[in-house]
Amino acid sequence: MTTPLRIGVAGLGTVGGGVLQILSEHAELMAARAGRPITVTAVSARDRTRDRGLSLDAMTWHDDPVALASDPDVDLVVELIGGEDGPAKALAEATLAAGKGFVTANKALIAHHGNALAITGLENDCALRFEAAVAGGIPIIKGLSEGLAANAVTRVYGILNGTCNYILTEMEQSGAAFADVLADAQELGYAEADPTFDVDGIDAAHKLAILTSVAFGTPIDFTTVKTEGIRNITPLDLEFAEELGFRIKLLGITARSGDSISQQVRPYLVAANTAIAGVNGVTNAVIVEGDAVGAAVLEGPGAGAGPTASAVVADIIDIARGNIHPILNPSGSASAASGADDEAEGRFYVRLEVEDRPGVLAQVTAALGDEDISMEELLQRQPESGSAAHLVMTTHETSEANLNRALDRIAKLAFVTEAPEVIRIESF
Amino acid sequence: MTTPLRIGVAGLGTVGGGVLQILSEHAELMAARAGRPITVTAVSARDRTRDRGLSLDAMTWHDDPVALASDPDVDLVVELIGGEDGPAKALAEATLAAGKGFVTANKALIAHHGNALAITGLENDCALRFEAAVAGGIPIIKGLSEGLAANAVTRVYGILNGTCNYILTEMEQSGAAFADVLADAQELGYAEADPTFDVDGIDAAHKLAILTSVAFGTPIDFTTVKTEGIRNITPLDLEFAEELGFRIKLLGITARSGDSISQQVRPYLVAANTAIAGVNGVTNAVIVEGDAVGAAVLEGPGAGAGPTASAVVADIIDIARGNIHPILNPSGSASAASGADDEAEGRFYVRLEVEDRPGVLAQVTAALGDEDISMEELLQRQPESGSAAHLVMTTHETSEANLNRALDRIAKLAFVTEAPEVIRIESF
Repeated sequence: MTTPLRIGVAGLGTVGGGVLQILSEHAELMAARAGRPITVTAVSARDRTRDRGLSLDAMTWHDDPVALASDPDVDLVVELIGGEDGPAKALAEATLAAGKGFVTANKALIAHHGNALAITGLENDCALRFEAAVAGGIPIIKGLSEGLAANAVTRVYGILNGTCNYILTEMEQSGAAFADVLADAQELGYAEADPTFDVDGIDAAHKLAILTSVAFGTPIDFTTVKTEGIRNITPLDLEFAEELGFRIKLLGITARSGDSISQQVRPYLVAANTAIAGVNGVTNAVIVEGDAVGAAVLEGPGAGAGPTASAVVADIIDIARGNIHPILNPSGSASAASGADDEAEGRFYVRLEVEDRPGVLAQVTAALGDEDISMEELLQRQPESGSAAHLVMTTHETSEANLNRALDRIAKLAFVTEAPEVIRIESF
Repeated sequence: MTTPLRIGVAGLGTVGGGVLQILSEHAELMAARAGRPITVTAVSARDRTRDRGLSLDAMTWHDDPVALASDPDVDLVVELIGGEDGPAKALAEATLAAGKGFVTANKALIAHHGNALAITGLENDCALRFEAAVAGGIPIIKGLSEGLAANAVTRVYGILNGTCNYILTEMEQSGAAFADVLADAQELGYAEADPTFDVDGIDAAHKLAILTSVAFGTPIDFTTVKTEGIRNITPLDLEFAEELGFRIKLLGITARSGDSISQQVRPYLVAANTAIAGVNGVTNAVIVEGDAVGAAVLEGPGAGAGPTASAVVADIIDIARGNIHPILNPSGSASAASGADDEAEGRFYVRLEVEDRPGVLAQVTAALGDEDISMEELLQRQPESGSAAHLVMTTHETSEANLNRALDRIAKLAFVTEAPEVIRIESF
């Protein structure tokens, strides 16, 4: 076991730099933990001349990242390029086809192509690892597939996108509007120039689709993830939620019920006294509910060079040790994935912006009553001069389909001045 | 890889029963995750006739648990007998000497004899696993040794004893005294008839000694764990702590500074807004601080049949998969373990019970000043008729040695009616 494991790294941005740094600064410690030395023998990146603070002299440089797959001095490829297609995908395919291990932090790649890549990996008896793709530094993939492997998992949920959690936390604490907090987050580097992937829930949906597959042994099915972002959340919603004893969090929730699995990424109201409600800022947290363990929480930094590199190097050490059991099950029986889950019972928060005139409440409750929906709590906020009144309610258990029918009618009432805002209430 | 892994289980109490239940009810799922079937072929327990709700007919019964080690139909022994010596130890030694894997939930056994057992395991190339020994269902051993293996760990701390955390939470919420809450906990089954191991911190110290070894790669050194329990904590301390913005938790903290490692189990004041402060009841939580990840939190049930069995079976699956790298490093260089750490700087909470008369505060501050200790906050509680007055202060940074010298003098002052209560304040 003293043969070194020879690594090729594609992509030398902050995460790639972090990986090289750990492997060089902690070379002895990593070798002790891996049972053999780990050496970076080859690299590929866009700009050869950029100063990365470390010497690449001892490594073979490849202009084309895909060349790492066929480099005879590379046993394992680490992909940190990003993007669901293009060179990242080509490199993954070529590496696994060549019978070499493949480690990536690329959630889009795995969410879209994980099944096909896993099949290639199985055919060639080599490892496909992606700990860093979900929840950054938190070892949740290992937690699900190994640490909690004794459990029949019933539900996995969590805060999977630090950008959204940061924005919601800031909105809650400052009372500022979404757009303003987003702009601040962009300046601070917590949000991208194009924030779509984060704030519309797509990034979290990528991660949730991966978690579902690992938790339930089903093929990855990104297309059925019901996905909604946080653009519609207002400071008023956060304020009302708090008044009702809740917080608003963008959660990914995957749950199995019989043969069907529901995957949803959307804002949720969660009780203020739950563990997940207290997770603030860019922190990620994932809770696994299993029949033996009950519930286990894993919490930590969901992004950043250090945490992401921590997860990437953990995968490398695993492969160096020979721990290469398959994590995905692409040939598992697909579940009756029900992303929408419109018939599932739940409780909901509804906020209506209405003109302040008599009879409003009567008509709203009548529309709800026609769908057998009863209210649990009701808050009315009278208008400041010139502004609209707000009617906020939480419902008892009902199906989302029922609620949507009622709200379709309510939205058409003349005194309703804006589309109703609906947020699901989740119990843990 | 379709050869079954054949298990012998010693001890069929609630945890042993839980293990058998998982392996029989989820046989197919476990086989899929392990890559091969897992079969319990032999068992040993005190009472053969007790109804355990499952049939033992297909298993060989051994009156002597140590016979499991030499049973030719057993590849791996699971020890759930408990106790640091006696049959548990004899079985561990015989199993590893026979070249078979050994899985245990026995923290006392590992804390006291882990080094010797690990050496036997290494000599015979077989696995020694004890995930269930620390923090029940939380996969913290795997988290440290694999999931966070890329990190140079600087500090690991946590709530390692659910009984103590339950008692402190109840005292905080009800205002009841330690002895009363303990009696309730005993009735509810959260505390043993003899609560010494739990409330005096010994159980947590066992776990902390194991965590230290896994985190820092040093031999286990239970003897240097500074250990103090929660018997002296009063409802008044919890009340004062809250007033000062803190909670009181019994924590195990292991931290490396240069070549020396300090291991301490004792009550700590922790800021009310930290993750650890919000962990209530029987829940355990462990936080790992590493140079790459920053801080990662693992939280969940620290005891109970289901969670403990979850961890035991995870170890079994690991061994079935062939993931048998050594976790302990008994031949690693021993650190300059400094359990007492009296010279380390820290902040402290001090509560004095004093007679209510003039000049008291002047003499106390003089004694502190002589040791260069300055106060950060001060609370005085005037006596209700007949009762003593309380003087509560938090100090700025000082060494515990300095503080103890000052308090030795203060304790001798005539108006001090009870030994001073000192609790360290820890920053995270």
